[in-house]
Amino acid sequence: MNDALLKNIRLQDPIFAPRQKTGREVTIPSCIRRCGETGRIKAFRLQWKKGEPDMPHIYWDSDVAKVLEGMAASLMVQPDPELEKQLDELVDLVVSAQQPDGYLNTHFTVAEPEKRWASLAVCHELYCAGHLMEAAVAHYEATGKRNFLDCMCRYADYIATVFGRGEGQKRGYPGHEEIELALVKLYRATGEKRYLELARYFVEERGASPNYYVTQEGFPEASLNYLQAGKPVREQTEAGGHAVRAMYLFSGVTDVAAETGDPSLLAAAKRVFRNVSERRMYITGGVGSTRQGEAFTHDFSLPNDTAYAESCAAIGLIFFAKRLLDATGKREYADIVERVLYNNGMSGISLRGDTFFYANPLEINQTSFDVGHVYSTRQPWFNTSCCPTNYCRFLPRLGLFCADASPDHLRIDIPAAMSVALPEYEVEIAGRYPYDGKITVTIRRGGCFTLALRIPGWCGKYSITLNGNPAKTVEKGYWTRKKNWQAGESVTLALDMPAEVIYANPGVPADFGRAAIQRGPVVYCLESVDNPDILLHTVRIPAEPEFTRCKVSGLPEGTEALQFSGTAVRSADGPLYSTEPPHSSKVRLCAIPYALWQNRGASSMQVFLLTGA
Amino acid sequence: MNDALLKNIRLQDPIFAPRQKTGREVTIPSCIRRCGETGRIKAFRLQWKKGEPDMPHIYWDSDVAKVLEGMAASLMVQPDPELEKQLDELVDLVVSAQQPDGYLNTHFTVAEPEKRWASLAVCHELYCAGHLMEAAVAHYEATGKRNFLDCMCRYADYIATVFGRGEGQKRGYPGHEEIELALVKLYRATGEKRYLELARYFVEERGASPNYYVTQEGFPEASLNYLQAGKPVREQTEAGGHAVRAMYLFSGVTDVAAETGDPSLLAAAKRVFRNVSERRMYITGGVGSTRQGEAFTHDFSLPNDTAYAESCAAIGLIFFAKRLLDATGKREYADIVERVLYNNGMSGISLRGDTFFYANPLEINQTSFDVGHVYSTRQPWFNTSCCPTNYCRFLPRLGLFCADASPDHLRIDIPAAMSVALPEYEVEIAGRYPYDGKITVTIRRGGCFTLALRIPGWCGKYSITLNGNPAKTVEKGYWTRKKNWQAGESVTLALDMPAEVIYANPGVPADFGRAAIQRGPVVYCLESVDNPDILLHTVRIPAEPEFTRCKVSGLPEGTEALQFSGTAVRSADGPLYSTEPPHSSKVRLCAIPYALWQNRGASSMQVFLLTGA
Repeated sequence: MNDALLKNIRLQDPIFAPRQKTGREVTIPSCIRRCGETGRIKAFRLQWKKGEPDMPHIYWDSDVAKVLEGMAASLMVQPDPELEKQLDELVDLVVSAQQPDGYLNTHFTVAEPEKRWASLAVCHELYCAGHLMEAAVAHYEATGKRNFLDCMCRYADYIATVFGRGEGQKRGYPGHEEIELALVKLYRATGEKRYLELARYFVEERGASPNYYVTQEGFPEASLNYLQAGKPVREQTEAGGHAVRAMYLFSGVTDVAAETGDPSLLAAAKRVFRNVSERRMYITGGVGSTRQGEAFTHDFSLPNDTAYAESCAAIGLIFFAKRLLDATGKREYADIVERVLYNNGMSGISLRGDTFFYANPLEINQTSFDVGHVYSTRQPWFNTSCCPTNYCRFLPRLGLFCADASPDHLRIDIPAAMSVALPEYEVEIAGRYPYDGKITVTIRRGGCFTLALRIPGWCGKYSITLNGNPAKTVEKGYWTRKKNWQAGESVTLALDMPAEVIYANPGVPADFGRAAIQRGPVVYCLESVDNPDILLHTVRIPAEPEFTRCKVSGLPEGTEALQFSGTAVRSADGPLYSTEPPHSSKVRLCAIPYALWQNRGASSMQVFLLTGA
Repeated sequence: MNDALLKNIRLQDPIFAPRQKTGREVTIPSCIRRCGETGRIKAFRLQWKKGEPDMPHIYWDSDVAKVLEGMAASLMVQPDPELEKQLDELVDLVVSAQQPDGYLNTHFTVAEPEKRWASLAVCHELYCAGHLMEAAVAHYEATGKRNFLDCMCRYADYIATVFGRGEGQKRGYPGHEEIELALVKLYRATGEKRYLELARYFVEERGASPNYYVTQEGFPEASLNYLQAGKPVREQTEAGGHAVRAMYLFSGVTDVAAETGDPSLLAAAKRVFRNVSERRMYITGGVGSTRQGEAFTHDFSLPNDTAYAESCAAIGLIFFAKRLLDATGKREYADIVERVLYNNGMSGISLRGDTFFYANPLEINQTSFDVGHVYSTRQPWFNTSCCPTNYCRFLPRLGLFCADASPDHLRIDIPAAMSVALPEYEVEIAGRYPYDGKITVTIRRGGCFTLALRIPGWCGKYSITLNGNPAKTVEKGYWTRKKNWQAGESVTLALDMPAEVIYANPGVPADFGRAAIQRGPVVYCLESVDNPDILLHTVRIPAEPEFTRCKVSGLPEGTEALQFSGTAVRSADGPLYSTEPPHSSKVRLCAIPYALWQNRGASSMQVFLLTGA
């Protein structure tokens, strides 16, 4: 993932572009304010004393780091001197907290200095370090200023003295992964191979015997899976434990594999990815189905109403899939990037940009909603506010997940309307994707390069023309053409994009006898605000519904809702158990994109509908 | 509930009689042994010192008390000098632990004497006292010996000095209710009205403002509902919080209402009961649907796979319903006693009698089972072993829930085969209920009394004869005849008892589109051991199945299983999401009584089946 490309991609589509704008105008300022109000920013002054309120928490640094990273990424998308000034000031404050030996962590500097590195399994120390490194790299790439980057190099150099296989070193590794991928970014930004080596060390030491956490920290062996530390990464075959940790780890594993060319590491990443995408992922791209430990559970265990599917885990899966896509060029990874992006990736944040879901269930039923279901409304902030601050850095980067560009190669992964302008060429992608399947790629400034256009995995039928003439289609993957492109040339892609009824594998107990609605990459849901006066969980969808596209009020211009006929029960009168089946009536229903639910007040919601209307 | 009646009722039916025998021969000895092995018995020696293992836990006394109570109840059903000797020895040990002031609690005597009564909300002190009182009353009724009873009177008298509205007294009440109903038992056994008054105090002080737990113990106001202490009992309208606590509380409330004739207390108990039976109870009679806090949640929230439905809560609901039945004589309460007894009440313990379910889910699906679902196999013991020890006292009492008898009134609530012999008359109930609907009530020894025979609420059609002649049927409730019965007279009741398909109220999200099978009071389930090679959660049942009664191996003689045809999916091959619906095949299925599942090894299990085969 090449952050610098953010300067070259301009989104103009109906979904990502406004989200990115909201991120810049609302989400980032709102999170800066919250970080200030909660003491997270002043923590870097290192003036907290025992007994005072607002003790810097072990993960606070990461929240601030993610906001800084988001500010920097945003500057790459759209320069903004005011924002840059604010960023530089915050960077100065963060850098000022660095200790003479290079260490930088507010909690362990002021609150528990004697416990530095004492509890890797649970204390987020290396996690915070990783986020600071990501922020520093983004700051450097956005502004060219080296102060934060140099500060983080010193921190990384210090960490390299503490951890490793040498005498007197700790053979530990982070309980919450993140620094692995951050060190690879640091390596890419600086060219200093030692950071890649440190990342490789953390990846390879993980889960080695005897287990560091068990022997050095008394961590229970039975819980090692929570930390992806039950066995070495190369031996892992399933996505297990805390979902965000797992996704960040395997993002880092893929990075290390890509940079070192290590086939066994890449194979492990692919294997775990396949387990996620073929056995443990919601149709919305959500992962980590249980709230207990915010974790992966087991194959096919995908409950809808209690789905945890943390926003950060979805973002983590996008990071992971995007890295595998870049490493392999294979469409299967882009398919997952896209599924998560348009669904769970966007549902975690409100359209207004200032409230967030931590969990992203696929069902809020009438009864859970009536009593204030914990998952049923987005919140402005959380004590553990990883999700809001993750959106600060995720939204500015949306363009990166749509295309990858180098002087001789332009790969369009998601054909959202955008322009990609490099010194060597400029290309514009136009259309209303994902609400419409017709996409036009126009060369604005010519050049010799390979154009690769993804044919989405969800698409059963499509046609393609080059300068108006039918072009050969491809079976799977990418339509690819290398040539000396001239300004004015164009490729049109017409993706057949009917609304479809989607069934989960019958191994998924929660979804059997049910179906979801998907059009293109967009998963739909029913919300009670559009479907009042029925018990939403009683809705049945016919096997072959006739869908009608329509608008609904209160959602962004251009949003396409889907109407269809089904059946539902209107009331819960009557006894608790009876020999009489409940009475369903014919009803007209209206589904909206899942990502947009709960933007018009609290509501019941349902993705998987019973079949058999 | 009149324990002394245990001496007059002899069960001879195919379900309760063998369970009672197993309770006597296996469950009680096994729990005595476990109480010994774990230190629960020796705790009463009060010799534990700080630093030693086996510190008496705050709720250990209650476990021993329930076993003692079970031993005594068992002696009433069947005298056994060996058992009585063992009971007397244990009673002597318990009594020896009483302090000079009357206090008796192993934990707070040896481990935290300074914290006596300091934390009513969470420390189970009055709960343990209540269980000891119940045991003492049972011991007295079984043996006529007063030592334990007198000891408990001293304890109750001491408690009455500590708690109350007088000057210097604590205006507290138990965090875990139990002592309320126990004090009413103590009152009934001794005739000492002050115990009833103390019970009434605990009932009436509960939830009063300012709240004792909040002001005196710093208990969070938001969690008061967990303890049924958010408002006074008379103002409570819903079953809330920890399910066992709620059921024990309202058992005690009903007792106090019955003894004092207080209509507002009885009304509160009826209101809460109606909320349970009409909105918050599984078809199996299970209550307390969530594991979080072992608690009631809200109306219609009855998930099947994550159902907690603790065994103790089911037993508590039987206690509660039986008390309301005795207080009102209304069939609706007997219907619930029966539903719980034959289903969740029996599923909590294995047929062998030495392993137990804490939770009683209505679904174990293939995937949860494959990875060792926490609820999927019965365990011999738990750290918190309330459920096993509850069965010690519950199984000997089974007869009490089938009939109530006084010199001039015999009420048959559940027409299980049994004899009821009082000095005034003797009656025998014969048949294979609940596997057969034909019941014969024969007068073995005549007398002048009213015979009341319940017509079960599940029964849509029945006929009744008196000495061979058709008798007038009743619309609802009990068929009642007062006369001078002669030996040899008989009443036959023929209950139409087809296997039926039962639907939950459409307000229950987990059950919509599903149906369960019930025959008479017995709820059925599918277990994978009888239905191999299919994904059990994919089974569909037709709207009007043709059921065939049959036997299955490994279950008790006389158990009736039900065969029927439906559809199911055989394998989970294929992609995670697809436009192709899963392929179901026609299959022959076999259902067994829910109470008997997991007696032939671990298995997937399903009560509510999808409809639409």
